[in-house]
Amino acid sequence: MVVSDRFVLGVDLGGTKILSLCLDPDLNVVSRDYRPTDAGEGVDGVLGRMAESARAAAGGRPIAAVGVSTAGTTNPTTGTVHTSPNMPGWRNVRLRDMLAERLALPVWIENDANAGALAEHRIGAGRGTRHMVLVAAGTGIGGGLILDGKLYHGASGGAGEIGHMQLDLEGRQCSCGRRGCLEALASGWALDLSAREIAQASPEGLVASFARREGVEPDGRILDLAAAAGDPEADAALRKAGRFFGDGLTNLIHLLNPELVVVGGSLRKSEVYYRTALEVVEREAFPQHLADVRIVEAELGDEAPAMGAALVAFEKLGEGPGARA
Amino acid sequence: MVVSDRFVLGVDLGGTKILSLCLDPDLNVVSRDYRPTDAGEGVDGVLGRMAESARAAAGGRPIAAVGVSTAGTTNPTTGTVHTSPNMPGWRNVRLRDMLAERLALPVWIENDANAGALAEHRIGAGRGTRHMVLVAAGTGIGGGLILDGKLYHGASGGAGEIGHMQLDLEGRQCSCGRRGCLEALASGWALDLSAREIAQASPEGLVASFARREGVEPDGRILDLAAAAGDPEADAALRKAGRFFGDGLTNLIHLLNPELVVVGGSLRKSEVYYRTALEVVEREAFPQHLADVRIVEAELGDEAPAMGAALVAFEKLGEGPGARA
Repeated sequence: MVVSDRFVLGVDLGGTKILSLCLDPDLNVVSRDYRPTDAGEGVDGVLGRMAESARAAAGGRPIAAVGVSTAGTTNPTTGTVHTSPNMPGWRNVRLRDMLAERLALPVWIENDANAGALAEHRIGAGRGTRHMVLVAAGTGIGGGLILDGKLYHGASGGAGEIGHMQLDLEGRQCSCGRRGCLEALASGWALDLSAREIAQASPEGLVASFARREGVEPDGRILDLAAAAGDPEADAALRKAGRFFGDGLTNLIHLLNPELVVVGGSLRKSEVYYRTALEVVEREAFPQHLADVRIVEAELGDEAPAMGAALVAFEKLGEGPGARA
Repeated sequence: MVVSDRFVLGVDLGGTKILSLCLDPDLNVVSRDYRPTDAGEGVDGVLGRMAESARAAAGGRPIAAVGVSTAGTTNPTTGTVHTSPNMPGWRNVRLRDMLAERLALPVWIENDANAGALAEHRIGAGRGTRHMVLVAAGTGIGGGLILDGKLYHGASGGAGEIGHMQLDLEGRQCSCGRRGCLEALASGWALDLSAREIAQASPEGLVASFARREGVEPDGRILDLAAAAGDPEADAALRKAGRFFGDGLTNLIHLLNPELVVVGGSLRKSEVYYRTALEVVEREAFPQHLADVRIVEAELGDEAPAMGAALVAFEKLGEGPGARA
């Protein structure tokens, strides 16, 4: 099988939208298709729309393979999505085989944070590094590990659950059921919750006032605005969350001794939060580990998982015809 | 170079003793030598005794190479011991080259927890597994990672600092300077400290009484005895430490999705502590990760690091003459 004369597709399945990219053999994006997921219509409906989106992005070009990225617990070896935080009805869906049948093409699946890590490593901020950790801090906190130059999956593709590293046994309840996971302490949804708590406790404070003025629920963005305007509670909430984020990064650095940590997701734009986190790493990481590591921002933006999914397909093709088994 | 007609040495450099093992080409231990470290005599004195111990274990047999395991931060690529918790004067000691010169043999060095992990993986509890974590919980808490079948070092050999995963930002001061590291909450020295605190606060309690009766300082072993005799404070201290240990294990399982966790060190014999830890993992780990992993006890005992050091030497020889560079 010659890889280089055909295109590959990367399809990112999100809770609200499906994005398909078509990449030429030189990894250039030549076409993209966005459409709504409409997850409420169930697995068959979503699969149908994924196939439509993939065909639209392909635009009649010869396609060698398809990579799919999706949130949740996925097993790339069996091609199964076990659970998805964004699509509550999805339980043990054999996504790889079901989509492969619809498209009559080889399909591989990958967790979206892993796919994002692969993309940053191959064509983004992590180019040329050997040991890289991607930490995606947005609404949730996810991660992907590139170890010895390869995406590290663990036993069944579950590796890299950075957001569910517990940092405070008495901390806030996490969506996973545990208390005090990094995600419950330092994610976008955790900051949104803090903003609502502050607004409730201080209805005359800046957080509540800014939210009222904008006609929105108090959230992390409002916290940023209020902190910048001098609100001490907003500032403290951002520092506390940033403190935990920095502790999570330091733990990862101690455990994996990476050369590079790539931080993606919207929270790196939250100035008080992110500066606090970097200060914690600088102060608390062991000198040896700190000397080895750089912390940089992701380069690829929201399309990184779809791009990474396409790269998975490329790399699998390179492994030869037995690769899919 | 033919590997199979010569012997290798594994030398474990500890704070109080040096252990040298001589292994035949089939990995059988054919000879061992113990002698005191006498770390107070400085680097040269210790190096001299390491060389004597190695020669004694060799007993005139033809030796192909030497592996050395040692505590602290080590860089196996440069052969340097950066710091050692047991030998305070050691700063950036080029142990590999200095010992190689004395013995006129190729030498490799490795962190002792990494060496122990390699030994358990190749000939102990981890045989045949692909992704294995060793957690050694004794006086301190160390670890080693076998990922994709190989010892994972990270950028400069610092990977696997499991004991310095922070679990409680307000927790007890750790020897590393941070607060609330796993080691400060759940190691042997942390339990010793808890025992002393309990004895001081309750001089008529079982912990204080047992220690007086035995004429020793209150320590973790006394906590075990007191808990078994029904002392609620001792029981609570062991449960709290075990809780943290279980949380540390769960974090590792979430992050690395291993097939096997091998627990070494004396604390696995502390019944309340260890049972509590296993209960936490069973209750808190994600179902996917829990289904993949077994948690077992180490098989090799105190000689695992020396054995692993010898295995490092064997494997380096197998990589060919360029391996040392």
